[in-house]
Amino acid sequence: MSYYKNSTNSIYKYLHKPFYKLEKKFRLENGKFIYNPEIAYKTYGKLNKKKSNAILVCHALTGDQYATELNPVTKKKGWWFDLIGKGKVFDTNSYYIISSNVLGGCMGTTGPNSINPRTKKNYGLSFPDISIKDMVNLQVELINYLGIEKLFCVIGGSMGGMQVLEWGINFSERVNLVIPIATSFRHTAQNIAFHEAGRQSIKADPKWKNGNYQNKNTSPKKGLAAARMIAHITYMSESALTTKFGRNKKDKTLSQIFDGNFEVENYLQYQGISFVKRFDANSYLYLTRAMDRFDLSEKYKGKLEKAFKNNSSRWLLISFSSDWLFPTYESKRIVNALTSNACNVSFVEIDSERGHDSFLLKIPRLFNILKGFLAGADN
Amino acid sequence: MSYYKNSTNSIYKYLHKPFYKLEKKFRLENGKFIYNPEIAYKTYGKLNKKKSNAILVCHALTGDQYATELNPVTKKKGWWFDLIGKGKVFDTNSYYIISSNVLGGCMGTTGPNSINPRTKKNYGLSFPDISIKDMVNLQVELINYLGIEKLFCVIGGSMGGMQVLEWGINFSERVNLVIPIATSFRHTAQNIAFHEAGRQSIKADPKWKNGNYQNKNTSPKKGLAAARMIAHITYMSESALTTKFGRNKKDKTLSQIFDGNFEVENYLQYQGISFVKRFDANSYLYLTRAMDRFDLSEKYKGKLEKAFKNNSSRWLLISFSSDWLFPTYESKRIVNALTSNACNVSFVEIDSERGHDSFLLKIPRLFNILKGFLAGADN
Repeated sequence: MSYYKNSTNSIYKYLHKPFYKLEKKFRLENGKFIYNPEIAYKTYGKLNKKKSNAILVCHALTGDQYATELNPVTKKKGWWFDLIGKGKVFDTNSYYIISSNVLGGCMGTTGPNSINPRTKKNYGLSFPDISIKDMVNLQVELINYLGIEKLFCVIGGSMGGMQVLEWGINFSERVNLVIPIATSFRHTAQNIAFHEAGRQSIKADPKWKNGNYQNKNTSPKKGLAAARMIAHITYMSESALTTKFGRNKKDKTLSQIFDGNFEVENYLQYQGISFVKRFDANSYLYLTRAMDRFDLSEKYKGKLEKAFKNNSSRWLLISFSSDWLFPTYESKRIVNALTSNACNVSFVEIDSERGHDSFLLKIPRLFNILKGFLAGADN
Repeated sequence: MSYYKNSTNSIYKYLHKPFYKLEKKFRLENGKFIYNPEIAYKTYGKLNKKKSNAILVCHALTGDQYATELNPVTKKKGWWFDLIGKGKVFDTNSYYIISSNVLGGCMGTTGPNSINPRTKKNYGLSFPDISIKDMVNLQVELINYLGIEKLFCVIGGSMGGMQVLEWGINFSERVNLVIPIATSFRHTAQNIAFHEAGRQSIKADPKWKNGNYQNKNTSPKKGLAAARMIAHITYMSESALTTKFGRNKKDKTLSQIFDGNFEVENYLQYQGISFVKRFDANSYLYLTRAMDRFDLSEKYKGKLEKAFKNNSSRWLLISFSSDWLFPTYESKRIVNALTSNACNVSFVEIDSERGHDSFLLKIPRLFNILKGFLAGADN
């Protein structure tokens, strides 16, 4: 059965197995409920008898549970294929890797385009607001279901790093190693602004139909592609864009103005178009909003250090030198807050010319540091 | 007569007086012609008898000829109101200021939404590709028409700075002082990428109608607003955005996800919406493309210094410390190229927290430097 059938959306739940269905209502941070949410996940490797070798990897905004295997929608390798597998950094001979699609996502976990079990219709915009903390609380349900008391490690980059931070703060006693990568304790005004430009692009697409596009058998692909294009620029450093494309012209003549003329434009257009085949516009709206609202210091009136009082986990913060979306100083603020509580924290800024996206790339120093850190803590 | 009458476009040529009409065909860099182009301009102050006190100010992407007086479309002060006028830096008691709308613009100078005199229809996408050099060549026609042999000064920021560079290189003998501000000798891959995201937004708007919206009495306002929103983020520094808005929430409750929740979002939405009342979408496409293609070193196979051989003008380059769109090192490359030709060049990086937009703002150090430089050269 084709998952494109009768729909412009490419993602059907039954493709995404296994999933764990909560047989109760799930309470959100804002007091609202989601009834019987489902969480789609994948595991790699085997849980040992002591149940002490589990690593939870948290995906970024547009990631999913297919961390290392072939993604059934994109037919591409998983986003951390280079990191996870036999003999790799997260060696599946030794570790039990868990990867789940976030709450609000579009790859099997309950999100705005899931069917509301109480109305039998798509949620659409009736889906409640969610937070990064809500995503983590749902992951906790999965970890409980899998019978794991304490995770060996929680790791992730960008929005994944935000989830890691929530884990490390709210469930410190249930995590040994906490590794947030290329992330921040709150979104800056600039981060919010770029997201807002993307959301506006989606909402400006008449096929968005006020979020009700699924029931009208359409999809705001152009708006979503434009949103992805904007975001993609922020994921790369200026020098990465220049190295990759510079000002190479596809065609040396001054051709028609409305064709892409520079290679970078064609690349961005391609990125935008391929993205809409695997992602849902309403999910994009809900998830970016959750990121924008994320602020660990808000509860403590700006005093971030209070969030880490009596924290018992072992922390490793990683940033990348050319990441201008989540610059090194954002990680350092977290390191400072942990240090002022005498927590066990390490920090590495990795030299990379490849911008925010570095956490998804084959960066030898990143791999070596993670391998060493896991091995050392393992003893 | 209302200029909104019978049209979604707010800009009618007859509003914009004076204008100079070329009674000949105008040859573009690419070999194509524009027949009888018109150039809308404004002057402030009086040309002296020696015709030696003329300053040409070149506007940026979304600027126009209304450099200091009330803009008849926006009803706001001109973009350099604080700089130009009696007793101001560009003192109209002493100087004769000339400001013209660029070729391809939408405020009276011939552009894609002008009427083609040969077909009596809007050009639309039949308007030929234009370059920054073409804009300058048309300004030269205006300066000739005004009877000025040598300009005292040519000055402008951003795209205006690109025009200034073309003036200083191609018409050095006709300019005394050349002052490019917050600009570059070529657009980077990142600059191009942000522009491309904006152009995609316009073209994704179904009301763009393949550029033929004027004849269908509509306008791609949403797409143009989204393009402006993206660009606006790049014009401000991260700290300027944070200082201005931080993460202030309009409403402390977690309100409906699809309302703007952070002040920065509302500001950007407002900026986007007010912009579409005064700007034309096709102009935006043509002008951003001209900027993207701009590369002074291309002709010299990357050897920028060759562009300044035997240059006789006096140069002042100005950059702003927090400008990440046209960072200081872009200006320095021009300074280096001039210096390696033993040209008369000065350079100032001005400390400013306000990003690329600084050249449009009341920055005392900018004003003092310009005032001193003009006065010194005047002697």
